[in-house]
Amino acid sequence: MTIWKQYEPELLTDLYELTMAASYLEEGMFGEATFSLFIRDYPPHRAYFVSAGLEHLKEIIPQLRFCDSSIDYIAATGKFSSSFLDYLRDFRFTGTVRAIPEGRIFFTQEPIIEVTAPVIEAQVLETLVLNVIQMETLIASKAARCVHAARGKGLVDFSFRRTQGVDAGVKVARASYLAGFLGTSNMLAGKIYGIPIFGTMAHSYVTSFSSEMDSFWAFARAFPDDVILLIDTYDTLCGAKKAVEVARYMAAEGRKLRGVRLDSGDLVQLSRQVREILNNAGFGDVKILVSGSLDEFRLKELLDAGADIDTFAVGTRMGVSADAPYFDIVYKLVEYAGQPVLKLSSGKKTWVGRKQVFRYYDEQGRMREDLLGLMGEDHPVGEPLLGVVIDNGHISCPMEPLRVIRDRFAKEWETLPLPYRDIESKSTYPVRISPALQELEEQTAREKTRQEIPGEGEK
Amino acid sequence: MTIWKQYEPELLTDLYELTMAASYLEEGMFGEATFSLFIRDYPPHRAYFVSAGLEHLKEIIPQLRFCDSSIDYIAATGKFSSSFLDYLRDFRFTGTVRAIPEGRIFFTQEPIIEVTAPVIEAQVLETLVLNVIQMETLIASKAARCVHAARGKGLVDFSFRRTQGVDAGVKVARASYLAGFLGTSNMLAGKIYGIPIFGTMAHSYVTSFSSEMDSFWAFARAFPDDVILLIDTYDTLCGAKKAVEVARYMAAEGRKLRGVRLDSGDLVQLSRQVREILNNAGFGDVKILVSGSLDEFRLKELLDAGADIDTFAVGTRMGVSADAPYFDIVYKLVEYAGQPVLKLSSGKKTWVGRKQVFRYYDEQGRMREDLLGLMGEDHPVGEPLLGVVIDNGHISCPMEPLRVIRDRFAKEWETLPLPYRDIESKSTYPVRISPALQELEEQTAREKTRQEIPGEGEK
Repeated sequence: MTIWKQYEPELLTDLYELTMAASYLEEGMFGEATFSLFIRDYPPHRAYFVSAGLEHLKEIIPQLRFCDSSIDYIAATGKFSSSFLDYLRDFRFTGTVRAIPEGRIFFTQEPIIEVTAPVIEAQVLETLVLNVIQMETLIASKAARCVHAARGKGLVDFSFRRTQGVDAGVKVARASYLAGFLGTSNMLAGKIYGIPIFGTMAHSYVTSFSSEMDSFWAFARAFPDDVILLIDTYDTLCGAKKAVEVARYMAAEGRKLRGVRLDSGDLVQLSRQVREILNNAGFGDVKILVSGSLDEFRLKELLDAGADIDTFAVGTRMGVSADAPYFDIVYKLVEYAGQPVLKLSSGKKTWVGRKQVFRYYDEQGRMREDLLGLMGEDHPVGEPLLGVVIDNGHISCPMEPLRVIRDRFAKEWETLPLPYRDIESKSTYPVRISPALQELEEQTAREKTRQEIPGEGEK
Repeated sequence: MTIWKQYEPELLTDLYELTMAASYLEEGMFGEATFSLFIRDYPPHRAYFVSAGLEHLKEIIPQLRFCDSSIDYIAATGKFSSSFLDYLRDFRFTGTVRAIPEGRIFFTQEPIIEVTAPVIEAQVLETLVLNVIQMETLIASKAARCVHAARGKGLVDFSFRRTQGVDAGVKVARASYLAGFLGTSNMLAGKIYGIPIFGTMAHSYVTSFSSEMDSFWAFARAFPDDVILLIDTYDTLCGAKKAVEVARYMAAEGRKLRGVRLDSGDLVQLSRQVREILNNAGFGDVKILVSGSLDEFRLKELLDAGADIDTFAVGTRMGVSADAPYFDIVYKLVEYAGQPVLKLSSGKKTWVGRKQVFRYYDEQGRMREDLLGLMGEDHPVGEPLLGVVIDNGHISCPMEPLRVIRDRFAKEWETLPLPYRDIESKSTYPVRISPALQELEEQTAREKTRQEIPGEGEK
């Protein structure tokens, strides 16, 4: 099978990255550039982001080469000189990447990643860095909201069938596990990342037997230690009574029915009725799992209304981040050849220079505010969030196991003050700008205005 | 680079597909099953879907095998018997796939694909079929809306940086090209599918030079036959005047400036002012390309307001189908061992049996209505939409070049009546149910109700 093997990461790029690179080469522009990756604005209801995706970049960037087949394609476009193709043949990333580790919480305007390298190398990474970080940060941020809304109940990722492609499906499983999900239905992600896998049965399974009861017996025979019965194929309450029969039989054999799943109908009422049927039959320990169009808003609604649910199988709406299917994430040049640079385009603010985020906590250890300053500023009390992960083109900190990142996020979450956790948050976490950064920004804008916009500079 | 090589398609599946398969094997259930893939409902404003993704399934399904490394992972879960693992080692798809070809328009409840095979083989494909078809159909449908809204102006896909993962990025380029886009910025898709690639320059390019003018000269030196200047980095009108300087110089050399790009500000007013600057200088043939948060709604707004734009670079909102980032697409068992089957879960209608869609046209050749009937029904005037694409596990119709599919869609579009093309359509295309299908559905529901829900059957 070759279908996904053609995805050479060096071509995870846009044509203009290469044409710009070719022009830099022709102009002899090898100055060091710093690009900053950040999110401009919050989507509605959002007050934080969860960093994710960095480990993939640590794996890809140091190994990035242009293979023969990619070079052949680039050559065949007819747009590039042989000297540029030679340059690509020898391409490797020799620069520095500073980043906020995965599993940390960050806010708008804060650089998630800063790449410093000869301008061609830093430019060519743009599409890759944006695509990889946005996808996983998007889902980790969405999944964290679901975990919060579930109020301690377990969550499982059931989204693989409707994620936007296969790469997304695998990354959704990883990012949601990072944010506190128990696991996923996704076999590929289970294999690649060692994430716990979960599953029940489909309606097709039930309907392929001559009766619902027969399908329940068959499943109990096949997986006696791991039986979760889907009970809403025909009638949920009838299904619950049949599940009790199975539970009784299993109990007599010294085994336990693990759970039942509901996927349709009035989940509040049905979950309570099913709970009662199970309890009355002495099976209070049989879990109720619910699926079907769930997201953080629906979870809150169900729990507020008193649904009696143990585990939520969250699918599509989490897996595509349906209420906010993209972030306004950008990768902007902030310094070239030692000089701060910026564009003046209306309404699109970029902070110049290499930067650091300093975090301040209150006496209870909760986040109080962040300070966005220039790299090298001295703020001994603030905790710097960005660290070097790639240095001179080589990984400079070990790859992190997913469990470590997951634990980091769990701890980080405890430090996020309550108003920002709300799934309909109206609060904005304070990110102050350091005086030095503010001054450099204004000075750069003044100079550029004077230089590029006749008549404006004097105002 | 191995990062995307781990995506074995046989593991593009959920755990429950395999546990159900294992139970079918244990029960000796090898009956022939038919699953039907369809979309339940329209998202808001939508009145049609564009079929896409089938060619990928034609490539994957006949070749689908469980490689050693996948078997090892499945074995390591500890959930499966050695006889099931042996079954997987010998797995291959031996069934039939009937489908609506790519590039055709279809509607809710209509099967896009029907898979008929021994139940294990048909069940195991569920996640794969859903994921592949939804992704591309989602984007082809969205892109068709953009093409319609652009009223004959050119469109280019600029979404790669913010698609949901890499697989999505490549598929977005393909699906939007299928729907009538001119091409993409996406190098991977250019290489894999031969789609025309486009590009301009980034703000980072402009700001890395000591002046905007220097950056324009440098680009014109590097790509004299393909210069599109980004003119909004500092001030769009000043940028336009500098572009005129470049155009004059190029003209003196016997060359032509191809275009300018605007990415911010009031695009209606700025596009008209820039057009005027270009026209007054004698460069009426220099094109204006616009980018920045575009989708079909914004395109309509811009054109209604009199924006003077030649080409739209459409990015993120198309690439994630932002207003409808998923479809309510399902893969349902409709027949097992010769018997129609269905579930009765409230509010989730599935039409039983193997089906065919018959399309009727009016005298002008426009679609009039579709008839959803059982396969084998005789409707000599109606055009059947589903055809066999995989037979006995083998491809039974040739792989289709993307250009052929693109042309098919362009023709198909002409047959779609105007009310359904509207990007805020309030019309619903008529899909009638054949009497035979209606009767089979009701009879099956009656029998299942009588059998599974005590007390209900008699009502």
